[in-house]
Amino acid sequence: MKEKLRLIVEDNTTKKGKIFDYFIQFLILLSLAAFSIQTLPNLKDKTITVLEFFELICVILFSLEYILRIYVSKNPWKYIFSFYGIIDLLSILPFFISHSIDLRALRVFRVFRIFRALKLIRYNKALHRFHLAAKIVKEEVILFLIVTAIFIFLASAGIYYFENKAQPEVFTSIFHSAWWAVVTLTTVGYGDVYPTTTGGKMFTFLILMIGVGIVTIPAGLVATALSKAREIQAEEKREKKRIKSPRK
Amino acid sequence: MKEKLRLIVEDNTTKKGKIFDYFIQFLILLSLAAFSIQTLPNLKDKTITVLEFFELICVILFSLEYILRIYVSKNPWKYIFSFYGIIDLLSILPFFISHSIDLRALRVFRVFRIFRALKLIRYNKALHRFHLAAKIVKEEVILFLIVTAIFIFLASAGIYYFENKAQPEVFTSIFHSAWWAVVTLTTVGYGDVYPTTTGGKMFTFLILMIGVGIVTIPAGLVATALSKAREIQAEEKREKKRIKSPRK
Amino acid sequence: MKEKLRLIVEDNTTKKGKIFDYFIQFLILLSLAAFSIQTLPNLKDKTITVLEFFELICVILFSLEYILRIYVSKNPWKYIFSFYGIIDLLSILPFFISHSIDLRALRVFRVFRIFRALKLIRYNKALHRFHLAAKIVKEEVILFLIVTAIFIFLASAGIYYFENKAQPEVFTSIFHSAWWAVVTLTTVGYGDVYPTTTGGKMFTFLILMIGVGIVTIPAGLVATALSKAREIQAEEKREKKRIKSPRK
Amino acid sequence: MKEKLRLIVEDNTTKKGKIFDYFIQFLILLSLAAFSIQTLPNLKDKTITVLEFFELICVILFSLEYILRIYVSKNPWKYIFSFYGIIDLLSILPFFISHSIDLRALRVFRVFRIFRALKLIRYNKALHRFHLAAKIVKEEVILFLIVTAIFIFLASAGIYYFENKAQPEVFTSIFHSAWWAVVTLTTVGYGDVYPTTTGGKMFTFLILMIGVGIVTIPAGLVATALSKAREIQAEEKREKKRIKSPRK
Repeated sequence: MKEKLRLIVEDNTTKKGKIFDYFIQFLILLSLAAFSIQTLPNLKDKTITVLEFFELICVILFSLEYILRIYVSKNPWKYIFSFYGIIDLLSILPFFISHSIDLRALRVFRVFRIFRALKLIRYNKALHRFHLAAKIVKEEVILFLIVTAIFIFLASAGIYYFENKAQPEVFTSIFHSAWWAVVTLTTVGYGDVYPTTTGGKMFTFLILMIGVGIVTIPAGLVATALSKAREIQAEEKREKKRIKSPRK
Repeated sequence: MKEKLRLIVEDNTTKKGKIFDYFIQFLILLSLAAFSIQTLPNLKDKTITVLEFFELICVILFSLEYILRIYVSKNPWKYIFSFYGIIDLLSILPFFISHSIDLRALRVFRVFRIFRALKLIRYNKALHRFHLAAKIVKEEVILFLIVTAIFIFLASAGIYYFENKAQPEVFTSIFHSAWWAVVTLTTVGYGDVYPTTTGGKMFTFLILMIGVGIVTIPAGLVATALSKAREIQAEEKREKKRIKSPRK
Repeated sequence: MKEKLRLIVEDNTTKKGKIFDYFIQFLILLSLAAFSIQTLPNLKDKTITVLEFFELICVILFSLEYILRIYVSKNPWKYIFSFYGIIDLLSILPFFISHSIDLRALRVFRVFRIFRALKLIRYNKALHRFHLAAKIVKEEVILFLIVTAIFIFLASAGIYYFENKAQPEVFTSIFHSAWWAVVTLTTVGYGDVYPTTTGGKMFTFLILMIGVGIVTIPAGLVATALSKAREIQAEEKREKKRIKSPRK
Repeated sequence: MKEKLRLIVEDNTTKKGKIFDYFIQFLILLSLAAFSIQTLPNLKDKTITVLEFFELICVILFSLEYILRIYVSKNPWKYIFSFYGIIDLLSILPFFISHSIDLRALRVFRVFRIFRALKLIRYNKALHRFHLAAKIVKEEVILFLIVTAIFIFLASAGIYYFENKAQPEVFTSIFHSAWWAVVTLTTVGYGDVYPTTTGGKMFTFLILMIGVGIVTIPAGLVATALSKAREIQAEEKREKKRIKSPRK
């Protein structure tokens, strides 16, 4: 019995296991949609009742799933303290502890449960590639994050000295200027803060010429690392084939 | 006779076939221009008459072309239900069914007929390369789209909690906040919505540091895949040469 | 005599040739600066007089240089109708024909003369690499430009239908909407035009998800092509060495 | 004694050296935080006193460190005129010379001392890779900077002619227009300056189509160069191994 259940709950290669997984995934998406709809203003009383009832059903089903997963697991404690175990608990816990708004916000973490769907669609190979790529560029990305942090600090301090006198209510302190630095260097440029003095504009020009690259290089690094990881995988595959048929 | 017409309509390697294709392409561009001009306000009555008359001519010519393509086709049904067959029909159908504005908007799909021009300019090889590249990065791009969707949801839910109290009319619900998330993560930053609380700004900073990469990586992936596809094509070409002249 | 002058004017490997070239480059930069300063409002009469006098000197010197280049050239007509020959003429012609503002604006083309400086700094190899890279990605870039054009048209027509009723003064016609499409797809996002309806916002979301990639991919293509061109050059260099010392 | 101190101050492989380095790094971060907090408006008198006292302690400790570094150095003058020597001096000098606000701003350069932290976290290899990558793309990046400068000048001059009459207070001169060119070509797009005439908008469209690539290509070049540098390092490593064990 327990063995049969495990095949359904933990395995997703069998037909029943797939149906179980698709159902849970579908329920997660529905519960996230309900969660989002609840934030809409001017909802009708009837809609709210329906949404709360649906939430009740979701929590019951997710709780059953959680208990089931602990029950069928060969090592229950390992599951409980695993990443997915904690996420699974966080997505039902708020309902039981209290109904205060703050805690219910934790429901948003249900979104992480969607990652489980990746198992279904069999992206193991692509995910493995990401893992490889992450290992390849780890050092560079950390280095770039440090450089970015230093660069944002310098940009904030610099613009503060140029613009503070002209726009004291916007560039009030280095912390306020950091908001400008982030919005500018990522090229978002909302337009709520921008330099107005000639000095500040020239400083922005300088900062942008160097900074735009710094912020976009990490993405380029990850992209090239992924293509490298693909090559490594292809190489490994060929290697395996050669070992299997050595007298070719 | 039918054979001769097919050489003109379907083939574009012959001189007559080329002239036919260039003429149709030119007509498509003209009809799209006319379509755009019709949306201009304060047009003179005379201009409207001319445009409508031109549209009439276009529809007649496109209809003749459509009938011709069915007539010369070896397998008419295959053409009718092919991608270009449907596009060709969509670009003339609205005129015959009704003159309601909504349906006439379908004329905009004529733009897809321009892709046929690619056959003319002989971009088969480059197109094949794109096909190869798409196959190489398919998995990663889908993975990134899922991650992007999850990321946008988390960003929307997060900013909603930070900014909803301060700007209830802008960050009204998670759906309204999603607009901010999209505009920010793609670095468009119109400036119609932006966080004003310190918490919201710090959250934006965090979201941008991770998110800008996520949105720009797919473009990098496609670019590197295309360069990889070019190498594969070059390899295939060399391979072919070697087979042709094995004793070199 | 003519031979000696040619060594100074056309050659930049000799010491005198270098001094001549540096002097001309310096003069071009100065004349561009003067040109920019002349657009400043509220200039003093004295400044204007100085700038006009400087412009006079520049034109005289550039004219002398132009005549000199024709004189020393082995094939004067070839020089006159070459790219640099025309640019050289355009940078002095406006002064002689008239003093109307419109024609004097042609002086801005003097900026192209700066490219000559590249010869000085010996970037021939890097330039050759760009030439190679351009040849490699030519097809893809043209393909992407066509796709971009089609995409901008579709985005403009789409947003026009969504937003025209809500903001008739901004999304007046497809042409007006094209401005929005360009500013959005390049992620500039000035904030002077943006959708306000739910339909328009969802359409923007869709357009951005696909479009941001389309606009940034060409840059990625050029970057990878340049790195490929570098490899080809390195390969060629090694090949040459091998030929020179075959018994290594 | 001096030898022992040198092991602590200059070396960071020993335990004591690491503690010393971590302490200095921590102090730098704290002093930068204090520096930023001091720019906040409406600080309480008590907070200011505490911050000034903390600054005094920092300067004393940094001065001691500076003297120590000169003392233990085998070649004191070399250290004093090295990059880090000057940075170290700049971070304490303002305090001693005067208390004028302008000079105290130099404290911001303390941020550069953080780079020393890189030695600690052992990023030598990644840093070396950056050095290699910089050497590979040096020529292209300089070429692109020149092209960018020319492009910004042309964009500024162009938009000035299109928009000056319509918006004389924004596009006052070519210098004022350069601010627009920078903000647009980097796709920041604050929205404080944008073209309003049809000519200006079409010019912007043209400029963006070419310009966006020019600004983003250098980042792509650096990213691919870094991946190339990684390959070179891996190659070198393999080469070394082969030399060590030649009869494998």
